[in-house]
Amino acid sequence: MSRATDAGRVAVVGLGLVGGSLTRLLAARGADVVATDTHPGARSDARAVGLRVTDDLAALCATEPDLVVLAVPLRAVRATAAELAPLLAGSDATLSDVGSVKGPVRAAVGAAGLADRYVGAHPMAGTEHSGFAASDAALLDGAPWAVTVAAPGTAAPGEPARLARVLRLVTGPLGGTAAVVTDDRHDEAAALVSHVPHVLATQLLNAVAGAPVRDLALGLAAGSFRDGTRVALTDPARTEAMVTENAAWVAPALRKAVRDLEVVIGALETNGSLHDVFHAADEVRELRAGARARSGGPDEDLPVGGAWTAGLVDDLVARCTAGAVVVRADDDVVRVRAPR
Amino acid sequence: MSRATDAGRVAVVGLGLVGGSLTRLLAARGADVVATDTHPGARSDARAVGLRVTDDLAALCATEPDLVVLAVPLRAVRATAAELAPLLAGSDATLSDVGSVKGPVRAAVGAAGLADRYVGAHPMAGTEHSGFAASDAALLDGAPWAVTVAAPGTAAPGEPARLARVLRLVTGPLGGTAAVVTDDRHDEAAALVSHVPHVLATQLLNAVAGAPVRDLALGLAAGSFRDGTRVALTDPARTEAMVTENAAWVAPALRKAVRDLEVVIGALETNGSLHDVFHAADEVRELRAGARARSGGPDEDLPVGGAWTAGLVDDLVARCTAGAVVVRADDDVVRVRAPR
Repeated sequence: MSRATDAGRVAVVGLGLVGGSLTRLLAARGADVVATDTHPGARSDARAVGLRVTDDLAALCATEPDLVVLAVPLRAVRATAAELAPLLAGSDATLSDVGSVKGPVRAAVGAAGLADRYVGAHPMAGTEHSGFAASDAALLDGAPWAVTVAAPGTAAPGEPARLARVLRLVTGPLGGTAAVVTDDRHDEAAALVSHVPHVLATQLLNAVAGAPVRDLALGLAAGSFRDGTRVALTDPARTEAMVTENAAWVAPALRKAVRDLEVVIGALETNGSLHDVFHAADEVRELRAGARARSGGPDEDLPVGGAWTAGLVDDLVARCTAGAVVVRADDDVVRVRAPR
Repeated sequence: MSRATDAGRVAVVGLGLVGGSLTRLLAARGADVVATDTHPGARSDARAVGLRVTDDLAALCATEPDLVVLAVPLRAVRATAAELAPLLAGSDATLSDVGSVKGPVRAAVGAAGLADRYVGAHPMAGTEHSGFAASDAALLDGAPWAVTVAAPGTAAPGEPARLARVLRLVTGPLGGTAAVVTDDRHDEAAALVSHVPHVLATQLLNAVAGAPVRDLALGLAAGSFRDGTRVALTDPARTEAMVTENAAWVAPALRKAVRDLEVVIGALETNGSLHDVFHAADEVRELRAGARARSGGPDEDLPVGGAWTAGLVDDLVARCTAGAVVVRADDDVVRVRAPR
């Protein structure tokens, strides 16, 4: 069985929405967690609710954590990693993060010489708010995570054991599931289900904001516009950073969107058929309708056999890239749930 | 004060989601309402809940309604209007509808010689379901409506009185508000806040459905994808019809979307700034944040002065095109609420 102590001591860098929620949830589950933040207000607010907080990164690393989780804004990862590197020089601590893109974060920690101890992580949860005041243990409780490994052929020998540590944390005290994939597959999928939706929502809002019929349109707006623009109402600077950091995957996905929209425009302007456009995703519609009625795919237990190996990691990546998730990670077995 | 009987006898053609909900709400409010449908099952279901239903259009018109509301699918409007025209030959009944586009409906009823008695109407409410079984008086109770008049210079002399009748219905027993605008302004605004959002939601769903990382992406999908694709999960044939009927306004709006997306792609590919894109709608963000805190704009009573005139209609159109709505329409006064 997973135990809260399986993950060892966890050090969280950054007490914003996600870092604060992560620290709260781990503390609530009895895990050994310590955190810090560059803002004195965040530190005192976190101490006021009973969390263990250090004044700076040096003091955080002096607690000898087994796992350090970067929960700082994407633009701050490079500088934070550079500050962290000498502090971790005598330690074997694993480094992870909670960023919404993974390839650029691996590159940033790599620039600080920390790539060999890095395992990427991204909880699929969030709100339109930010800061420790908005943090809440419930935000991450049971969340689906993506946990990312290096590209094939580039992994450090220690990666399987570090991955196991992160998976024990996610599926243990955090109560979540983990899709183990490469950075590229994560960033490609995140572009499709998160970054492109944010860009399209922004375009919808901008189009109405700049239209001569703006006030009438806003007055008539109902469900489809409200849903379609909800994420555009959140902090636009944060959205800009997220989209920009994943430019390598967002740009081609938007190019495809443009091509698709040009097909629609062409049909509308020539009285052509839109049948194929509107029925292209019928299989997904049926899958979703079916998924609501089912409780989940079948589980399969994979034997670990002593120590986690690169072969086991490759197997997990292959299964998760096809939609499976890890639901439990013990010393002797890893449990995988097939996609619904 | 508005009275339920102000609207006279209302005949509803079509007992689907909207027609059924309209008939139920009017009956619940004690209004004089009769309905029909070409499907015997819809007629018997409606009778079973106590609604007054005729077997066909001829019997419906024989009840001598003051207002006939077409609540049939867009593709059926032209044929229904042609069947209705001879049945209304000896009557002064006003003709209205509930369609999601207005210019094409006016053209269709005009082809049957009914344009002079037509006032367009579109309730801004709906669900992903359809049919009488899904109808519910609550769906339309208090809904915002668009009510449309002919283009400047083309209105029949009787239009002001017919508009007054429709506004009494909407703001009286239906408890709603009405934006009085021309067909073109309605269709332009509806393209922006309804039809383009439906196309973009469909594109998002199609892109994921056709991606090599489909199963991973669906597994990682969280709020932004769920919200961004919700309306794409509804009946795609209905969406296709709605978008196609409003091609004249949807196509140019999509062309603008393509241009906007190309700006984003260009910035992503050249490491350019996206600041302006992500902050273009800041004023609307602030308006929306403010609107949530306020209860509504100030009301103004416009005197009718005996009978509704073309000048009063022009005044209402000017105000509503700028975001105002009619909240009450009596014989002597029409009350207009300024935009928030």
